[in-house]
Amino acid sequence: MMRFSRRQEFVAELLGTFVLILLGSGTNCMVTLFSPHVGTLVNGGYTHVVIGWGLAVMFGIVISIRISGAHLNPAVSIALAVCGRFPWRKLPHYIVAQLAGAFLGAALAFVVYHAKWVEFDPQLAYTAGVLTTFPAITGHFLPGLIDQIVGTGLLVSLLFALADLLPQKHTQWLTPLAVSLLIMVMGIAFGGMHGYALNPARDFGPRLFAGIAGFKNTGFAQGIWWVPILGPIVGGVLGAVLYQRFIGQAYHQTGQSGGQDQGSRTGEC
Amino acid sequence: MMRFSRRQEFVAELLGTFVLILLGSGTNCMVTLFSPHVGTLVNGGYTHVVIGWGLAVMFGIVISIRISGAHLNPAVSIALAVCGRFPWRKLPHYIVAQLAGAFLGAALAFVVYHAKWVEFDPQLAYTAGVLTTFPAITGHFLPGLIDQIVGTGLLVSLLFALADLLPQKHTQWLTPLAVSLLIMVMGIAFGGMHGYALNPARDFGPRLFAGIAGFKNTGFAQGIWWVPILGPIVGGVLGAVLYQRFIGQAYHQTGQSGGQDQGSRTGEC
Amino acid sequence: MMRFSRRQEFVAELLGTFVLILLGSGTNCMVTLFSPHVGTLVNGGYTHVVIGWGLAVMFGIVISIRISGAHLNPAVSIALAVCGRFPWRKLPHYIVAQLAGAFLGAALAFVVYHAKWVEFDPQLAYTAGVLTTFPAITGHFLPGLIDQIVGTGLLVSLLFALADLLPQKHTQWLTPLAVSLLIMVMGIAFGGMHGYALNPARDFGPRLFAGIAGFKNTGFAQGIWWVPILGPIVGGVLGAVLYQRFIGQAYHQTGQSGGQDQGSRTGEC
Amino acid sequence: MMRFSRRQEFVAELLGTFVLILLGSGTNCMVTLFSPHVGTLVNGGYTHVVIGWGLAVMFGIVISIRISGAHLNPAVSIALAVCGRFPWRKLPHYIVAQLAGAFLGAALAFVVYHAKWVEFDPQLAYTAGVLTTFPAITGHFLPGLIDQIVGTGLLVSLLFALADLLPQKHTQWLTPLAVSLLIMVMGIAFGGMHGYALNPARDFGPRLFAGIAGFKNTGFAQGIWWVPILGPIVGGVLGAVLYQRFIGQAYHQTGQSGGQDQGSRTGEC
Repeated sequence: MMRFSRRQEFVAELLGTFVLILLGSGTNCMVTLFSPHVGTLVNGGYTHVVIGWGLAVMFGIVISIRISGAHLNPAVSIALAVCGRFPWRKLPHYIVAQLAGAFLGAALAFVVYHAKWVEFDPQLAYTAGVLTTFPAITGHFLPGLIDQIVGTGLLVSLLFALADLLPQKHTQWLTPLAVSLLIMVMGIAFGGMHGYALNPARDFGPRLFAGIAGFKNTGFAQGIWWVPILGPIVGGVLGAVLYQRFIGQAYHQTGQSGGQDQGSRTGEC
Repeated sequence: MMRFSRRQEFVAELLGTFVLILLGSGTNCMVTLFSPHVGTLVNGGYTHVVIGWGLAVMFGIVISIRISGAHLNPAVSIALAVCGRFPWRKLPHYIVAQLAGAFLGAALAFVVYHAKWVEFDPQLAYTAGVLTTFPAITGHFLPGLIDQIVGTGLLVSLLFALADLLPQKHTQWLTPLAVSLLIMVMGIAFGGMHGYALNPARDFGPRLFAGIAGFKNTGFAQGIWWVPILGPIVGGVLGAVLYQRFIGQAYHQTGQSGGQDQGSRTGEC
Repeated sequence: MMRFSRRQEFVAELLGTFVLILLGSGTNCMVTLFSPHVGTLVNGGYTHVVIGWGLAVMFGIVISIRISGAHLNPAVSIALAVCGRFPWRKLPHYIVAQLAGAFLGAALAFVVYHAKWVEFDPQLAYTAGVLTTFPAITGHFLPGLIDQIVGTGLLVSLLFALADLLPQKHTQWLTPLAVSLLIMVMGIAFGGMHGYALNPARDFGPRLFAGIAGFKNTGFAQGIWWVPILGPIVGGVLGAVLYQRFIGQAYHQTGQSGGQDQGSRTGEC
Repeated sequence: MMRFSRRQEFVAELLGTFVLILLGSGTNCMVTLFSPHVGTLVNGGYTHVVIGWGLAVMFGIVISIRISGAHLNPAVSIALAVCGRFPWRKLPHYIVAQLAGAFLGAALAFVVYHAKWVEFDPQLAYTAGVLTTFPAITGHFLPGLIDQIVGTGLLVSLLFALADLLPQKHTQWLTPLAVSLLIMVMGIAFGGMHGYALNPARDFGPRLFAGIAGFKNTGFAQGIWWVPILGPIVGGVLGAVLYQRFIGQAYHQTGQSGGQDQGSRTGEC
């Protein structure tokens, strides 16, 4: 068993989220900023959004999994803590790392694509959506909130299912691959109602950067910035608790918690 | 060897089919309901339909495979029973779970996308096809029936081939991945003549929900609802029997039934 | 070590090629026959052609690899025979099985899509290309021949490289997956000059069926039918010999022929 | 442990880069030369560019990994040398092999597609971009240089992360697959500002061939040819050093350098 310091965990979690957001935001830049006009996607369009974010999560996990466990998402950290699979005392420190990594990833994507960005949207008036998410039904927060709760509930319950299913000795390479496929299907099936943030750090870190960098439509004025924060936290906890209740407990009762070759990983909830 | 209760198997099979239909129907919502008009696909179009349903099956298997074996399809359960690989007495209880899971998955997808749905098709007059399947050649049932028989025959024979090929100790993670690729190629090669249901529960559960939810074109009036029920059952049994006759028996005769490191899994047919 | 009878090998090789051509031709039907007019691709277009044929090969291998070794291609069987990795006496019997499987696979795809086919092209005047391949540069055979030689050379040398690289104990599931990715990149990079047949059986079996079924443009009159037969055979042997000369021999000299944990698989050439 | 001669390493590195560039340039030919006019992509468009180059790298690795370690990129060889993971004395000999392989791969792609090429662009006036890369912002080298530095930095740091993560006994088949996914996401997220060369040999070898073959717009006159040489070298070294500083050292300090079952692979930087 490896032991890493608090600082090493912080750096790994920050860099993992940084890689995730740099690759994900870079993907959004590619499909948006090279278009002849606002509202059309190019360079692979929504299919690349979905594959790009899926692989972004994969490599965010690759760089951090052995040191921090690669949560990369406060909704995941909170759900794990609620179920006793992650110590509460580490929570603030993980969430700060995730937010900082997401902020910096968005900032570096902005630097790399800056020359193109100011050609496409010189006033930064329409393109905050490259960095952060917005509802499909403008003027209503409820459809987006339902979407974020159900989507993150499904995401977290399937992350728990993967953790219980994958044989632990292959976890290091199977987990990044399997989770990237999970992120892809979340985008394919749940990407439209609120941009499938499913992750408060992924959404709020870049939104904060967009505000500081001078974007006009950041979602703060519209009052929707809290939806992809609250929704994923509520949904994540719900998904974790329901999974444990209906599937995780069955393994526990038969003494088969976790993958083939491992001891109990099933927590309290 | 793990033993799970009847109730645990029922819940796992229900949740597996629920995840499959929620992700699959969500995919259909994404490509249909965000289009500017009926009949055009957006957000990745048919490619996302194919990848989305493939990964939907993958994660339906992930959540249920260790408890119920993840049939998620009455045609698979029946074909396994016919070949002695699944006890007949469990059949009714699996099929009810599959139908209930499919019904609930369609219902939750309808809830998540409701705000968009009523914007796109306020009378629910054209969009039952988001939830259930229809023939390409309207007014004729035979082409769709042939397609469902051949398609499910191929699907089930290749599922049997995968079960005989994959080394059992890696089955838990290889099976979801391999089956998702199989579902993808079925959609790519056999998706056009009757929407590649290939699964009576996948088709009838959501069709029932569509009828109750007030959709106008549910296929009940057109009298085609039975095609993706009968076709898959006939095709599944045919595929299983032919596979056993031409390939499975060869392993059996050489004492090599099943994956490299396992005993006989070859049944009666 | 398993031993199968000549008849079992024949059936497996036939069924493997049958599955390959049924899924591949089905893919071509999906992207062609549902189009509003000849010359446009729909339902995922060329991307689905490439993924569909890749996965078609994967599942053709899945159903036959343990019994016949899943050549599914006379150019592969001949290259293996030339390099001493396959007995010459089995060659005729494998090639007949491959041709018969390809013929039957095309025939069943024609049956499944018949109702749509006669709607799209009632005289069967333009659509033989759904079943078999044609040159991009009409009236010249040389560009297509170069393409088939180089393409099959690359294909066979990389198949040999995979056979030397993949650890033998995982071969049964890794090989179908890796070869399907190889077929995909061949279609992406070498699909345009002559439809990437790269396989005399894949091309000639369905062309024969097209002639018998009454298609008008079968390539027999144009005199190009021999290009995707001769090209792949020449290219396959060239690729095998060059691979052995420049890479395979290096393993042999260091006593490292074949995967990590296996004895010498390197043959004569 | 295998030992190969200098000549065997040279040939393997040359052939690996040859396969990479032949498949990658073939992909570019497919999406460009079959278009009705310059500036439009067909046959899968940018999605095929991304998948094609990803799989091109995969099979370049497959053919060379066991003999030369499959760098296929001077920026990778230099970064490995800087970090003490590759002997400096081998560097010139690897770089020459990489350049020669890239030159020859581009040449063979030109031969295969020649008949189509001279139909599409008879003067070879617009299509050097099929073989080599150009900046999105014409007349400025800085945005492209930033893109190449950040992109290659990310690429090399993630290659190091994969080397530290993947269990060594499965490296031979996992590495080609994982690296191909990494190349895909680099294209999806960083392909627009300078064509994601990320590799001096991939860019300069084919550019040299384009000049010799008589292409008009080769980038030499525009003075941008050095950007995808300098950028990747600087970025690669930066990425390697930062990875070692923030992640690699953490493994080292806990005595956990490299995959689960291996000794220290962590070098000096």
